[in-house]
Amino acid sequence: MSNPLLSLLNIELPIIQSPMVGVSTPKLAAAVSNAGGLGSIGIGASSVEQARAMLRDTTALTDKPFNVNLFCHTPAVADAEREAQWLDFLAPLFDKFDTPAPTALREIYTSFVEDFGMLEMLLEEKPAVVSFHFGLPPQSSIDALKDAGIVLLCSVTSLAEAQQAERAGVHGLVAQGYEAGGHRGVFDPQQDSEMGTFALVRLLAENCKLPVVAAGGIMDGAGIKSVMQLGASAAQLGTAFILCPESSANPAYREALKGPRAHQTRVTSAISGRPARGMVNRNYIDLETNAPALPDYPIAYDANKALNAAAATKANTEFAVQWAGQGAPLAREMPAAALVKLLAAELK
Amino acid sequence: MSNPLLSLLNIELPIIQSPMVGVSTPKLAAAVSNAGGLGSIGIGASSVEQARAMLRDTTALTDKPFNVNLFCHTPAVADAEREAQWLDFLAPLFDKFDTPAPTALREIYTSFVEDFGMLEMLLEEKPAVVSFHFGLPPQSSIDALKDAGIVLLCSVTSLAEAQQAERAGVHGLVAQGYEAGGHRGVFDPQQDSEMGTFALVRLLAENCKLPVVAAGGIMDGAGIKSVMQLGASAAQLGTAFILCPESSANPAYREALKGPRAHQTRVTSAISGRPARGMVNRNYIDLETNAPALPDYPIAYDANKALNAAAATKANTEFAVQWAGQGAPLAREMPAAALVKLLAAELK
Repeated sequence: MSNPLLSLLNIELPIIQSPMVGVSTPKLAAAVSNAGGLGSIGIGASSVEQARAMLRDTTALTDKPFNVNLFCHTPAVADAEREAQWLDFLAPLFDKFDTPAPTALREIYTSFVEDFGMLEMLLEEKPAVVSFHFGLPPQSSIDALKDAGIVLLCSVTSLAEAQQAERAGVHGLVAQGYEAGGHRGVFDPQQDSEMGTFALVRLLAENCKLPVVAAGGIMDGAGIKSVMQLGASAAQLGTAFILCPESSANPAYREALKGPRAHQTRVTSAISGRPARGMVNRNYIDLETNAPALPDYPIAYDANKALNAAAATKANTEFAVQWAGQGAPLAREMPAAALVKLLAAELK
Repeated sequence: MSNPLLSLLNIELPIIQSPMVGVSTPKLAAAVSNAGGLGSIGIGASSVEQARAMLRDTTALTDKPFNVNLFCHTPAVADAEREAQWLDFLAPLFDKFDTPAPTALREIYTSFVEDFGMLEMLLEEKPAVVSFHFGLPPQSSIDALKDAGIVLLCSVTSLAEAQQAERAGVHGLVAQGYEAGGHRGVFDPQQDSEMGTFALVRLLAENCKLPVVAAGGIMDGAGIKSVMQLGASAAQLGTAFILCPESSANPAYREALKGPRAHQTRVTSAISGRPARGMVNRNYIDLETNAPALPDYPIAYDANKALNAAAATKANTEFAVQWAGQGAPLAREMPAAALVKLLAAELK
């Protein structure tokens, strides 16, 4: 089961747990890494100090390598008029929950492409692996992380993005298919190829020199073996880990994933401003019908978080973010270490 | 390489050539069947007598089993106002080619769900295999075909459709992923799950009793092995066969498939009235921008065929139908028998 990517990552199993902001935790990442896979934490929505604490919490729980994921989106451009229109559009929903809509929206976190404090922190803490989502950071940041001995991965959704990541000098490509839950890693959402895992992985395996990690719809050992047949060196599983007790998914999210909604996932940009796949709830209906132009990511997300908080005051979870991939009905509920062990057994 | 589905279909290799109206031919189907796979012809757009001739032409070229595909869409409902608006919308494009737009549109072919003459012909000619696309025919038609000893397959794009096909008593499920070229087999286009091949095949393999044929993005032996790992009993390849000399794809279509456009496929309903994936040309841009409500399938298709004919008078192929799946860049140009032989070698 060894290959150059696993050697580079210094892991035994070709299993990466997806970084999932809001779901993954240091405890989950450490459990996966301790079991022989590569755990991941997502710090894209964290401040530098919050991120440093998450890294240290993870390091305290495992001496194995783990992956730290960053958001490299084009920084948001504020547009007061567009944001006001969006809030006007959402106002009737806030009314329903007897909560005033926010009077303004803000860019709730900073893209790593301009967060040099985050870069400094990473160079100090030196996690084994860093991965990029939504694009690539400046070349100087990539070079600095590489010089510090950190292995770099980048999510890609097309051959063109893969070639861009190759030119930038990352060590591996996470080929994220359209099946995948959560935010699509597409660099420019206006140019989304919507490529499925199957076609994307095979295309990259045939056309790229870098090792490929397949992501999207992979839920079990058969899935992992299948993507390795296509030429992938490892598989990244996210939705498969949501039901683990170590994840921070709340009870409503877990219930939805265990019920009929797992069969109905869709990609929308209306929640955050960028395309992401989740289980269909009112977010997918009320925010997509007769909607005006969306604020930039993550400004739109600020509005959705406020709306979900308003709904929560009435015990309504219909505006909660419940990301999940198309493999959701195959999710199995067990501790992360047991799941990794089961995947390894299925792989044999 | 044997399994119950291959025994039932009486073929050696787990390779089905997709029926592709406008691309597949009796010669292509026979070459694939003679090489040990299952060739297919599509008669969904044919009259009963044209269809009978195609079956006989194929039978003359092979004594091996082949598959005959039928369209089982909900019959179109004519709507003079909607159709007139659609033609008004297209009028400037017809003007560009100095050709008057049609004054009316018609349902250019009959759904098998109400074509009992076609059923009679099939019961007389008795092809080894019949497959359904866009849904299921009446139970009485299914039962009559089964009683005649014909093996029945049905395209499905979700678990719900698969369960419906199982209840109707077909022998196998063609799990068509979102990667696939051509028309999506979705029963009700308003309920399109857009499931990728990877997630769909695994979900069906785990939840259905019937054997599963995987379709969408499969281009080579690695792809076939990969879907068999997921639990499929065979793979159906369409785009992989377009460049074969036995296909009826015209030179412009072949050139597009060998060039950069192969990297850019998209699903649109604007060409025919039903969602279908092809290489992006002006059809995908001019027919989707500020478009009014579409006529029903296949009434909208009548308009597109007229528009393409008008464009052709000026040697313009930008409105041609050039269906292709997301695996298109991996298409290889060679005779069908050589391709099947190569796939078989890659499978070993």
